[in-house]
Amino acid sequence: MDEFGLIAALARRLPKPGADVLLGIGDDAAVVRTGGAPFVVTTDTMVEGVHFLETTLTDYNLGYKSLAVSVSDIAAMGGQPKFAVVSIAIPSGWAPERLERVYDGFREVTERFGCHVIGGDVVSTSGPLVITTTVIGEAANPIPRSGARPGDILFVTGRLGGSSAGLQVMQEATSVSDISKACLIERHQRPEPRVAIGSLCATAGVHALNDVSDGLASELNEIAAASGVRCVIDADKLPVLPEVVELARGVQRDPLSYALYGGEDYELVGAASNRAFATLLAGASAMNVPITRIGRVDEGDGVVMRRPDGQMEVLDPKGYNHFKRDDA
Amino acid sequence: MDEFGLIAALARRLPKPGADVLLGIGDDAAVVRTGGAPFVVTTDTMVEGVHFLETTLTDYNLGYKSLAVSVSDIAAMGGQPKFAVVSIAIPSGWAPERLERVYDGFREVTERFGCHVIGGDVVSTSGPLVITTTVIGEAANPIPRSGARPGDILFVTGRLGGSSAGLQVMQEATSVSDISKACLIERHQRPEPRVAIGSLCATAGVHALNDVSDGLASELNEIAAASGVRCVIDADKLPVLPEVVELARGVQRDPLSYALYGGEDYELVGAASNRAFATLLAGASAMNVPITRIGRVDEGDGVVMRRPDGQMEVLDPKGYNHFKRDDA
Repeated sequence: MDEFGLIAALARRLPKPGADVLLGIGDDAAVVRTGGAPFVVTTDTMVEGVHFLETTLTDYNLGYKSLAVSVSDIAAMGGQPKFAVVSIAIPSGWAPERLERVYDGFREVTERFGCHVIGGDVVSTSGPLVITTTVIGEAANPIPRSGARPGDILFVTGRLGGSSAGLQVMQEATSVSDISKACLIERHQRPEPRVAIGSLCATAGVHALNDVSDGLASELNEIAAASGVRCVIDADKLPVLPEVVELARGVQRDPLSYALYGGEDYELVGAASNRAFATLLAGASAMNVPITRIGRVDEGDGVVMRRPDGQMEVLDPKGYNHFKRDDA
Repeated sequence: MDEFGLIAALARRLPKPGADVLLGIGDDAAVVRTGGAPFVVTTDTMVEGVHFLETTLTDYNLGYKSLAVSVSDIAAMGGQPKFAVVSIAIPSGWAPERLERVYDGFREVTERFGCHVIGGDVVSTSGPLVITTTVIGEAANPIPRSGARPGDILFVTGRLGGSSAGLQVMQEATSVSDISKACLIERHQRPEPRVAIGSLCATAGVHALNDVSDGLASELNEIAAASGVRCVIDADKLPVLPEVVELARGVQRDPLSYALYGGEDYELVGAASNRAFATLLAGASAMNVPITRIGRVDEGDGVVMRRPDGQMEVLDPKGYNHFKRDDA
């Protein structure tokens, strides 16, 4: 099968696009129509051996996750994902069936989040698999990370730390129960882009928003730097996933380290006025997604965390000096 | 330098985007505005060792060419390139300076064709360099490859065969003059996307249009298959670059083989009514780009070429059975 045949075969695995796709896969370029509103564009690349391993991500979930993380970027703008193009460099010897599983993973993202794959490229490589996803979304009121203001409430969606904990339980022997293990692995392989909450944030007038791709400490540092403010969070407010607490206890590590530095949780973290936060809470209650107030925005710079004993700790983006395994 | 720092540093090498970029590099996604017209999206991936070699493409021209080929796809839709996102997986050991040269190549494309890089990703890989470019363009009247009708004129822009000939002179000892060699290498490394002609094609009402990425025979087969027609071309009408003829004579190969099967010339090939073709010719005369009538569209299927002796030859996309080196 040649490349066109392969792409055509793969395209048939995808849901049929709606009327706003004037021309989809199969020509030099895809043609899409918007209503004149701003649209948002994001791109992400995952490399085997760097961002994932064959042993930690199924082909299906590689498709799901690679597209979901770009959808999450759109959610973090308060946008609605609309269109995606995907490019895959596959190692020689990869069977076409494996690529089909990857596209099946795309399909799930398309169906659940309304993001149609309108084009792509499949090429071969002598190296590891490389997958690039580009997503275009509509956003009537895009939310930058630079809009946080002193006095704002800092909040985060969902529960943190699961993704890095999931990676750990796949790679090391741990004492967590099978059911907790499955939960953590799910968090690592199948992040949930918070598209509906992101939209709600845009409607509510949230000032700044990021998705947690690199760990909460890193995202808060980005918001602080881009907004010219200081983020102050409370350690005992951080919503750490219970299964992460279970794992952390077994490996004698601070559970917060997973939330602050683990990354890839793809929850949303933002800054909002009291009024916008109230609107957000009211709207989110119907979605069964917890939203937690974790701190406030002050004048100044950087990110600090208040420990339960009152001690203030500066959080830099990666935290190499702050959290170490107790047994190290 | 971390990834954000690197991307920020690279972004500063690019021209400042216009007012239609509401939010560019540095956030989760870029925000762009269109006037409500359809926009077009295309993506291309180039892999070192598959699509290029360090010895056949400078870093600057890797940037230039990788973005230019996506711009060419937009031109082949009759569109205007507007925005690009680029993703690069770089081998360990690549110096930042090399990446800067790649971005300098992007910059040239941005400046010459109005295509602003609004986002991207830079990651590391244990394998060869992989670069993915995605371009979004406006197109009020996008031209598919499926619109050719019996009776249409087939035409091509520019002169063909130079790119594959350029690759050959870089890899083999040949008898071409230094000045011809430089011309051919230029054709290989620095293809010229035909954006203005593509726009003219849209205005003139050209029925079908492709860019020559895979060789003329392949592109005509795509037009024939997508349109449900037969393409008939005349061998003695094909505009082969004179330097290609010079090379072909020396290596005892049919000059047409470079034009038909060499690929990567990035000229435009299309089908138009007599009236649209006349409009196109009149408009193109001011641009100093030759436009050559190479044949006609018939009822039927496939692609055939009439040799000067009247013999008809079926051209399949790759032509492996048709053209061989005489000395092979």
